[in-house]
Amino acid sequence: MKRTAEPAIPETYTVTSKTRLIRRNKNASYDRAVVHGILDSGLICHLGFIVDGQPIVTPTSYWRIGESLFVHGSSASRTLKKVGDGLPVCLTVSHLDGIVHARSGFNSCLNYRAVMVFGTAVLVTDAGEKARCLNGLLDRLAPGRSTESRPSTAIELKATSVLRLELNEVSAKVRTGGVGDDATELALDYWAGTVPIRMVVGQPVDDPELRPGIARPDNIARVRIGR
Amino acid sequence: MKRTAEPAIPETYTVTSKTRLIRRNKNASYDRAVVHGILDSGLICHLGFIVDGQPIVTPTSYWRIGESLFVHGSSASRTLKKVGDGLPVCLTVSHLDGIVHARSGFNSCLNYRAVMVFGTAVLVTDAGEKARCLNGLLDRLAPGRSTESRPSTAIELKATSVLRLELNEVSAKVRTGGVGDDATELALDYWAGTVPIRMVVGQPVDDPELRPGIARPDNIARVRIGR
Repeated sequence: MKRTAEPAIPETYTVTSKTRLIRRNKNASYDRAVVHGILDSGLICHLGFIVDGQPIVTPTSYWRIGESLFVHGSSASRTLKKVGDGLPVCLTVSHLDGIVHARSGFNSCLNYRAVMVFGTAVLVTDAGEKARCLNGLLDRLAPGRSTESRPSTAIELKATSVLRLELNEVSAKVRTGGVGDDATELALDYWAGTVPIRMVVGQPVDDPELRPGIARPDNIARVRIGR
Repeated sequence: MKRTAEPAIPETYTVTSKTRLIRRNKNASYDRAVVHGILDSGLICHLGFIVDGQPIVTPTSYWRIGESLFVHGSSASRTLKKVGDGLPVCLTVSHLDGIVHARSGFNSCLNYRAVMVFGTAVLVTDAGEKARCLNGLLDRLAPGRSTESRPSTAIELKATSVLRLELNEVSAKVRTGGVGDDATELALDYWAGTVPIRMVVGQPVDDPELRPGIARPDNIARVRIGR
């Protein structure tokens, strides 16, 4: 049999009416590597959906496997019980990188990186697939952690719902750099500059009830956050 | 004339059907000081609203003055043009505080603090009030900054829309502390513990075009982030 080549993954996401940025569109990016980079350095997303006509924005952990994002929750959750054939969502991840103090209040702003994903989140129903997906979360929290913790039982898996959201309608927005005052403002008598902000990972702390003789694996401190 | 006492502000927000937490309700708080503390240490919120039936979650700067939250944007924004008599929103602020590695994948989780605000955001229409509100943002970015930057012009104010959201329907959710493994798990052969995560403010950087002789005000580095 002749082998067919894998279809090449395009380097950019296709712009749609939902993802086309109109305001400050010079900050927009549809580049897959930029999107993945922003997604892969966050741990909490903000998931927006509608319940009884009301917008809800829930902060929740998320993780990426290939071109899918995942979130999880209790199977007893009112929202997750209503997912059924799919839940229309907007999933947003953002990182704050700094404050930009212009001479004018008007040009002062924040530096940030953000990704918005539109789509329909669907339940992962197959138990084996669900277990594999949840391993992705553990491996996000520390590389390889899924093989260094007690695997979930069938009861635990049943109590957990996992939602998958495909990366199709996606945009990134990035503001970086310095002060954007007009040339006519530079002579003003006000200070201008930037204040960098970043997330840092502290020193891991052993559980006080840790059994003697168990060493902390190196991977625990190797979690990617913010950058 | 007899002076009437100011009405006392209750120490907690009233719980409503929208703000009552059902899942993990031991982590819920309606305490005003807890809510204010979480709001006052963030710079970016995630604002959820509905456009043509689609949930949208926008990361945007926000600030608090008393019992009001504010966000702002361009008056030319498609969304802000549609606000009219009010935009039903869910505004969420969250802080990531750490990773909790339990011995079981199932009990692993994140430490975080989050606030969700439900309500109808309305436009601030009076120009003087709008200017005062926007000063609140500058003073949030650095205490007193509104008096140490070029005030907005009438044209700039007209180009800026400000939305106000009252703090009425509000809940906080806080997960703190260590590993929550069951007692029966403690003998397992896996490491357990926590990894703290926090935001840090770096050293301010002068604008390369700063006019000689302008010193950096002390307040620039005194921005409250994360805690």
